[in-house]
Amino acid sequence: MKLVMAVVQDNDAGRLIEKLSQKKFGLTKLASTGGFLKSGNTTLMIGVEEERLEELLAIIEKMCKPRKKIVTPLPAGPADAYVPYPVEVLVGGATVFILDVERFVKV
Amino acid sequence: MKLVMAVVQDNDAGRLIEKLSQKKFGLTKLASTGGFLKSGNTTLMIGVEEERLEELLAIIEKMCKPRKKIVTPLPAGPADAYVPYPVEVLVGGATVFILDVERFVKV
Amino acid sequence: MKLVMAVVQDNDAGRLIEKLSQKKFGLTKLASTGGFLKSGNTTLMIGVEEERLEELLAIIEKMCKPRKKIVTPLPAGPADAYVPYPVEVLVGGATVFILDVERFVKV
Ligand code: NI
Ligand code: NI
Ligand code: NI
Repeated sequence: MKLVMAVVQDNDAGRLIEKLSQKKFGLTKLASTGGFLKSGNTTLMIGVEEERLEELLAIIEKMCKPRKKIVTPLPAGPADAYVPYPVEVLVGGATVFILDVERFVKV
Repeated sequence: MKLVMAVVQDNDAGRLIEKLSQKKFGLTKLASTGGFLKSGNTTLMIGVEEERLEELLAIIEKMCKPRKKIVTPLPAGPADAYVPYPVEVLVGGATVFILDVERFVKV
Repeated sequence: MKLVMAVVQDNDAGRLIEKLSQKKFGLTKLASTGGFLKSGNTTLMIGVEEERLEELLAIIEKMCKPRKKIVTPLPAGPADAYVPYPVEVLVGGATVFILDVERFVKV
C-alpha cells in the first residue's frame, strides 16, 4: 500500500475529492496554507493499493493540470476611478509525494 | 522509528490524545475533515519507537473501536409536529498508516 | 527525494518559512495543535532532494533552537492587587521526521 500526499489548489480540491470519492479512493483532507502552490492550497492524504496508483495519479493529473483562466479583478477603489479588464492567470498544478506504507491497520 | 498517521473520529480524538499523553507518546494533531471516516475526523501524527508500536496500536484499537451509540435527534421542526425517538448509530473506527522514519531529529 | 515533516512552534514558524522560501525549499504548512511541543505548533511538510537535506536541517536547527525568553505576564486581576514581574520561559524546539519518498510527481 502507498500513502499519497497531494498538495493541490483549493480551487481544484472540491472537484478532485468528489471524483476520488466516486472512484472509491479513501482520503482525508488536511487544512493547509501557502507553500508549494502560490495561492491557497489543500493537502490530501490518500491511501492506495499499488494496483490503483496509476489510476489515482491520472485522475490528479487530469483534474489539477495547470491551465489559463480569465479573471476580472474587482475594482480596488471608487468605480469611476478604475475600470478593471479581464486578465489571464495560471491556475491548477499539484505536488504529489508517494510514500511506502509499511503497515496498514483498519480498526 | 515509525511515524504513525492515524485518522480517527473527532468524537474519539480527545480521549485518545489524553491516553497517549499519559503513556508518553509524542504526537501532534492535524486539523482534518471528511474522507476515510463518515463524520468529522482528526489526523494524529505519532512518532513511536518500534518496541512500543504494538502498545500504541492496541490503545488506538481500544479507544476507537467501532461501536453502536444511541442518539436522540433534535426535532427539525415545531416540537408538536414531530416527536423524535432514539436511534442507534455506528461511531468510532480508525484508519492507521505506519510509515518508516529514515531519520529522526530533535532540535 | 525526502519528505521532511517538521513540527515547530508557532512562534518560530513565520521566520522559518520565510527563510526556507528565500532558499527555494518547497513547503506546505499544515495547521496543527498541541502534542510534541508544549504551546501552539505548526507542522511543515517539506520536499527536499537528498543533496540539500543537511542544509535544510541546519536551517531548522538554527531558526528553532530552544532558547530562553523573558516575558512579562499580564496581570490576572485588578492592577493594584498583583504586580507582575518578568519571568524566563523556554521557547523553540523542533521535532523532525525524515521520510523516504518513493516517487515524486509534479503536475
Ligand atoms: Ni504496499
Ligand atoms: Ni526506526
Ligand atoms: Ni530520493
